[in-house]
Amino acid sequence: MELQLLLTGNEIMSGDTVDSNSSTIAQKLMPEGYWVDRKVTVGDDFDVLVREIKHISASADALIINGGLGPTIDDLTAEALAQAAGIELEENAEAHAHVLSWCEQRGFSANGANLKQARLPVGVRILPNSVGSAVGFALEIGKCLVLCTPGPPSELRAVIEDGVKPMLAEYRPQPDRPSIRRYQTFGLGESGAQQAVLEAYPDWPDDIELGFRAGAPLLEMKLRIDADCPIEKADLWEQNLLSLIGPYVIGRDDTTLAEAVVELLKARGETVTTAESCTGGQIAAMLTSVPGASAVFEAGIVSYSNSIKQRLLNVSDESLSEHGAVSEAVVLEMAKGALAQSNADWAVAVSGVAGPDGGSEDKPVGTVWVAWGQASNLQARSFYYPLGRSLFQTITAALSLDLIRRDILGLQDEPAYFRRKPR
Amino acid sequence: MELQLLLTGNEIMSGDTVDSNSSTIAQKLMPEGYWVDRKVTVGDDFDVLVREIKHISASADALIINGGLGPTIDDLTAEALAQAAGIELEENAEAHAHVLSWCEQRGFSANGANLKQARLPVGVRILPNSVGSAVGFALEIGKCLVLCTPGPPSELRAVIEDGVKPMLAEYRPQPDRPSIRRYQTFGLGESGAQQAVLEAYPDWPDDIELGFRAGAPLLEMKLRIDADCPIEKADLWEQNLLSLIGPYVIGRDDTTLAEAVVELLKARGETVTTAESCTGGQIAAMLTSVPGASAVFEAGIVSYSNSIKQRLLNVSDESLSEHGAVSEAVVLEMAKGALAQSNADWAVAVSGVAGPDGGSEDKPVGTVWVAWGQASNLQARSFYYPLGRSLFQTITAALSLDLIRRDILGLQDEPAYFRRKPR
Repeated sequence: MELQLLLTGNEIMSGDTVDSNSSTIAQKLMPEGYWVDRKVTVGDDFDVLVREIKHISASADALIINGGLGPTIDDLTAEALAQAAGIELEENAEAHAHVLSWCEQRGFSANGANLKQARLPVGVRILPNSVGSAVGFALEIGKCLVLCTPGPPSELRAVIEDGVKPMLAEYRPQPDRPSIRRYQTFGLGESGAQQAVLEAYPDWPDDIELGFRAGAPLLEMKLRIDADCPIEKADLWEQNLLSLIGPYVIGRDDTTLAEAVVELLKARGETVTTAESCTGGQIAAMLTSVPGASAVFEAGIVSYSNSIKQRLLNVSDESLSEHGAVSEAVVLEMAKGALAQSNADWAVAVSGVAGPDGGSEDKPVGTVWVAWGQASNLQARSFYYPLGRSLFQTITAALSLDLIRRDILGLQDEPAYFRRKPR
Repeated sequence: MELQLLLTGNEIMSGDTVDSNSSTIAQKLMPEGYWVDRKVTVGDDFDVLVREIKHISASADALIINGGLGPTIDDLTAEALAQAAGIELEENAEAHAHVLSWCEQRGFSANGANLKQARLPVGVRILPNSVGSAVGFALEIGKCLVLCTPGPPSELRAVIEDGVKPMLAEYRPQPDRPSIRRYQTFGLGESGAQQAVLEAYPDWPDDIELGFRAGAPLLEMKLRIDADCPIEKADLWEQNLLSLIGPYVIGRDDTTLAEAVVELLKARGETVTTAESCTGGQIAAMLTSVPGASAVFEAGIVSYSNSIKQRLLNVSDESLSEHGAVSEAVVLEMAKGALAQSNADWAVAVSGVAGPDGGSEDKPVGTVWVAWGQASNLQARSFYYPLGRSLFQTITAALSLDLIRRDILGLQDEPAYFRRKPR
């Protein structure tokens, strides 16, 4: 079964609006067994719309049109669909009643613009809209089921649930729904991860598709399991995958590094503190973005200058003058200072050269020292990420959380990012 | 000149990734005089890609392909383009050198997957990528100029600037470029701003289009000025607009709130400190995301618990027990404490209920107190944004920076967000 989307709107073509609707449609229909094969986006142009509807409906089994159902003159979908199907518009009784009652509920009378939303192609079936004034509607053109949906995201969601899903189930039933298993990982590159999996398992089965999605800074790995793949087989291959990448796995689904650290600490009844220079508060902000972070995080200090490192974190004159602010000695003292100020169980401290200025031959832009651990067992290590200020800060913050995560878990093997040359 | 986009990626079709790239492309090319006429999105399927490239290149003057340049087996753009154009792939010397140097800079040797990114259709011109390993490339198929660009957003932006724009200017010059003037504003809603402008200027001219782009938390306002509009006329209408919204304007182009605050403080040789509870370090992280922030920011304290508020910021027992952590008295003491610890000239302090837990009837989730100013003139005010934890934190951090910005500038009139009821 081939499903296509047609999106319409000048504001999407100009880039003023980022289209999140097609993502919504895909995500809501995938668990029902429908996969979007192709998507076309055009501006609010009548002839272009008619041409696309004719062209797509000649080959696809189903077409979802999104947008252009509103009350204004640039909302053209009903008229374009009628033209493409070679039928007339009429006042649709069900749509008309909906517009009247929607306006009445809001305390005004329907005007001509509102009532335009009830003029639909002859013979459509209505897709109810519990949120807005524009109902969706469906029509078959040849062998293609065309479903028209409204553009406002909250209305689209309502129409998918109450109209699109039931209509697809009736006209285009899908018995075979795939299942998806997703993992967030940190410290693996997309190409390295793929190579490692294919080397270990060159005969990866056809009915379990392995996918990657590189984010900054996480890499998502995903198994898309065909409906007819036995669950034991899926479990086995999941285990195969996890045995390869286990220590890099932050968690399932959309788990973030900060969520993983907060969960681990919560389970142990322990707390963490931060002492940040080059990341400027980003590590603390990531931790406190997690609901319930207050159970594991009480204090963070952003010590952006040397004098603040001395005053608030008790970093010594000697370390600063002998080794400089970006040094093993200083990050270890920063971590100790943060532990002393906060009484936390764990600390992470970072000091580096984010750039664009401040680099030297000895410590070029991109150099960073990280200290982490418990008071009795602090470790430190330097890294080198000359990737521009913003990406450097993002990666340093993520790396710091991952070091704490690995330490709490007691993972023994060194992460791949330890093997990168510090410079 | 007809310009089309072709986007490829299973992650876009599945909805795992919301496509912001086509918005980026449209927005970056519009000031150069290019308008995207049609956009097609498909999954990582070789035959489908070849078919779309052939079909689009038969009619369009230019085609920008986005995605599919990565190192893995599902990255198919180079091969599909070669097939569609009827030419072979070869190792491209320029791309090969780029991949090797990119890997070397990151301290590892290029593997087969990396080097796949250098196998390109014979005769392409390279579009340099200063950020990632995959260069872009361009080729003419018949009368259509095809430009292939990488999927990761930061890489796409680099390739547009350094490759796509110059290549389009060379092959498809556009004499009549509209000019675009953009302003970032904070504190205005899209519909309110639009209404205010149209009420003040009902006869807005046809050759100067006013546009809005609602971000979180900034609202961009934009003037698109036709090429034949006299500059004096454009200046006059720009002045009309700025006279309406002046105090809300953060800056031109892509200025952020943090950049505006850092610039203002730098010009005065002054510094700012932060004391954050519910924003958890986000205000400090925004400030230190700005290059050169060290000139104006030395210290920030994330005081997530009451005991830390007392220990590090000298907040009094009395204020905490009488008024609670989310109160005027406590944020004022937090600001004073931060000023004392840092010797900064300005402070901003926030304490609020980010949720989902911790709310009370008196102080429901979404309540926040902010204190800001200089030691001699601290002010405090409460706000109420029950919008979910993440958006609450984002808006509170932005609001705090805006309050400092307005105070430094000495703006007298109250921002519109003061008129929202605190609950």
